[in-house]
Amino acid sequence: MGTTQQLADFAASTSFKDLPDRVVHEAKRDIINLIGVALYASVDPSLKILLDMFEAEGGNPRAGIWGTGRRTTLANAALANGWTGHLEDYDDTHFPTVIHPSAPTVPAAWALAEANGSSGQDVLAAVALGIEICCRLGVSLHPWHYDEGWHITGTMGVFGSAVAAGRLHGLNAAQITVAMGIAGTQAAGLRENFGTMAKPLHAGRAAEAGVVAALLAKGGFTASTTIIEGRRGVAEVMSPGRELSRATDKLGQHWEMFQNGLKPYSCGVVSHPAIDAAIAIHNRPGFNPANVTDIEALVHPLVPELMGRPNPTTGLECKFSSQHCMAVGLVDGAAYPDQYSDAKAADPLISSLRAKVRLVVTPGTLEEAMTLRVSLKDGSVIEQHVPHATGSPKNPLSDDHVNEKFLTMARRAMSEADAKAVLDGLWRLDEAKTVVGLVP
Amino acid sequence: MGTTQQLADFAASTSFKDLPDRVVHEAKRDIINLIGVALYASVDPSLKILLDMFEAEGGNPRAGIWGTGRRTTLANAALANGWTGHLEDYDDTHFPTVIHPSAPTVPAAWALAEANGSSGQDVLAAVALGIEICCRLGVSLHPWHYDEGWHITGTMGVFGSAVAAGRLHGLNAAQITVAMGIAGTQAAGLRENFGTMAKPLHAGRAAEAGVVAALLAKGGFTASTTIIEGRRGVAEVMSPGRELSRATDKLGQHWEMFQNGLKPYSCGVVSHPAIDAAIAIHNRPGFNPANVTDIEALVHPLVPELMGRPNPTTGLECKFSSQHCMAVGLVDGAAYPDQYSDAKAADPLISSLRAKVRLVVTPGTLEEAMTLRVSLKDGSVIEQHVPHATGSPKNPLSDDHVNEKFLTMARRAMSEADAKAVLDGLWRLDEAKTVVGLVP
Repeated sequence: MGTTQQLADFAASTSFKDLPDRVVHEAKRDIINLIGVALYASVDPSLKILLDMFEAEGGNPRAGIWGTGRRTTLANAALANGWTGHLEDYDDTHFPTVIHPSAPTVPAAWALAEANGSSGQDVLAAVALGIEICCRLGVSLHPWHYDEGWHITGTMGVFGSAVAAGRLHGLNAAQITVAMGIAGTQAAGLRENFGTMAKPLHAGRAAEAGVVAALLAKGGFTASTTIIEGRRGVAEVMSPGRELSRATDKLGQHWEMFQNGLKPYSCGVVSHPAIDAAIAIHNRPGFNPANVTDIEALVHPLVPELMGRPNPTTGLECKFSSQHCMAVGLVDGAAYPDQYSDAKAADPLISSLRAKVRLVVTPGTLEEAMTLRVSLKDGSVIEQHVPHATGSPKNPLSDDHVNEKFLTMARRAMSEADAKAVLDGLWRLDEAKTVVGLVP
Repeated sequence: MGTTQQLADFAASTSFKDLPDRVVHEAKRDIINLIGVALYASVDPSLKILLDMFEAEGGNPRAGIWGTGRRTTLANAALANGWTGHLEDYDDTHFPTVIHPSAPTVPAAWALAEANGSSGQDVLAAVALGIEICCRLGVSLHPWHYDEGWHITGTMGVFGSAVAAGRLHGLNAAQITVAMGIAGTQAAGLRENFGTMAKPLHAGRAAEAGVVAALLAKGGFTASTTIIEGRRGVAEVMSPGRELSRATDKLGQHWEMFQNGLKPYSCGVVSHPAIDAAIAIHNRPGFNPANVTDIEALVHPLVPELMGRPNPTTGLECKFSSQHCMAVGLVDGAAYPDQYSDAKAADPLISSLRAKVRLVVTPGTLEEAMTLRVSLKDGSVIEQHVPHATGSPKNPLSDDHVNEKFLTMARRAMSEADAKAVLDGLWRLDEAKTVVGLVP
């Protein structure tokens, strides 16, 4: 059996009861985290562009758009929830690959689960297996695929969504193989669009592609059964290098999803260690950001490559500016979505600090680590080293922190009491007979 | 101005009156040809898989699905008409790149034109400019992009559809640039799926992506303005080589769309010269295919690469079997859709002839040329050389042949009289105040 069929077989034959407790627990945390950030983004004006299109196009109310009270088609619900899930760049990150696996996977699962009356256990299994397969495929193509310019969340996301939607739509292994063939041939998303609305669109379209693939595969569609490993398939065509055995090694024993981290900060993950350091310096007694004369950041090469943006002019651009991340950490002691607004982009003190940042690529620095050296007017230098950023696999968010983040996010779209009720329902997802009504 | 903006500017600033007569005439032929093959495919059972999905998902009746009498959303209409337009692999082919530019472009234009009440002249200009830009981009990445494994109809098609839909949705140059940024980041379609239903899906999804891109760009969406030429854009990421100046050289003077040919045969274009040769041999007095002992085909390397398939088992696979193409040419003297059925795949005489074919890659053979040597039981050898296949730029279909093909195709979905009325309406597209009602 080739890679695609092996993965489809694993996806089809693994039941909820087969899943280790920790896998279920992580899937639950991933779902809570994703729905929390999606609820926060559900009041963002940009969502209206999608909703206006949905309104004009019409469609049956089959699944909900989180936070809006609206219901729409399965494809549109997956698109919109994938969009809001990734809009703030505050969703989860699979550290080895920088995939954001939940934004394509969870919305696809949720839409099918609402339409088909699936149980909470079905959804947890679908999400766990979707994320697992998405991340495994990412690992097998990393770093070549991402380095080539692909937004790996869009490209590998289609497999997470196809697997999750496929399970919840009752596909057997052969049909999931076909769904992967349909979804895989829609793998897309270029890093050229980073910093624009088209970036979260990648996650939304990946979610939608998986849903459509599951519907078509169930309807009798045909597609390649070797979309991953074939001579003209995803691995050969979309990645200059590959190690496909990593996609299938120790399936069911090794869980790649454990490398998926929940973000404490609302921006690109490669800047998280720098924010940890900046907040630690902000919290030092007597620190005043107006006294800063120089900021030297010893960082991994991906920091300048992905987030070397000294002059962001919009909130969205700020999310991809490591300089901005450090500046708000030093000034506000925080990196919540509020720190990534157009107003913060134009703030004079923050702008002046951004201009003082020097990114120094330093060999041996891990992606989750960095050292920050801040020089002050009195000639002193504060140095802060961060070995493992908050939210990385070696320093994961606690469940309490996950709850706090969820409530902070969800409060933007609903009352505190409602947010707590949603959170409680999601923690008890494994007992839920249906997911209908769990998220308004 | 970069490549993307130059092309968007050209698309936005060129009016119908600016177009040379021949450009308008070719656009009209392309539209007639595409709608003809789409009408033929509209009764194919596979379309039901899409229609069932549309039915379950619902949507406002904004645009028609050709041949079905149904109306659906703009996105679904584009998807379905792109699907039927390419299903039979009988649509047009841009010879230098093997792009099928009309299947993504015309359905996108038609859907927007129906919804917005655009005139026939508006549609002709949108289609001409969409096809032109699609083909120019293809040329600038050819052969590297296709050789890498991309189905160039899907990947470049998104630009044809975005440009055409963008013009008909009233986008200015800046908005068309954004639409190209949105559509370009959805460029997808892997050759691994050749021979399956996912191949025509590439054309359908490309049409849909352009429609969605135009709607979102008009709504205020943001995207990269350098999706083609940017460091992480389509050209760098999706093609090992590129010559981007070819996309913009002599815009408005040189027309790449003149290299777009209309197919006389219902299969992959690289086998067309072989079918010309086989039919010529079939037509020789006294020829009997039962007497054939050996078939030697001196061909371009793309023939075995794309269509070296000696044992096809389905009609769809036969479309990508050069061996089958020659066999039906010799036996039936034809290569209409009827020759690519499951029954023909299993026909004993045709199967036996397929097994006798030897594909011999012969240096110096043009893609549009070939030599066929058929040996007979009596020891004689018939040799037939074809310098320029029917339908290639140097041997184009006459307008009469276009009409005959259209009527042959459309008759599967409607009466002869209705087909003639549609054909007449399409030839007079430049006089039409609206396209609504032109195609049932």
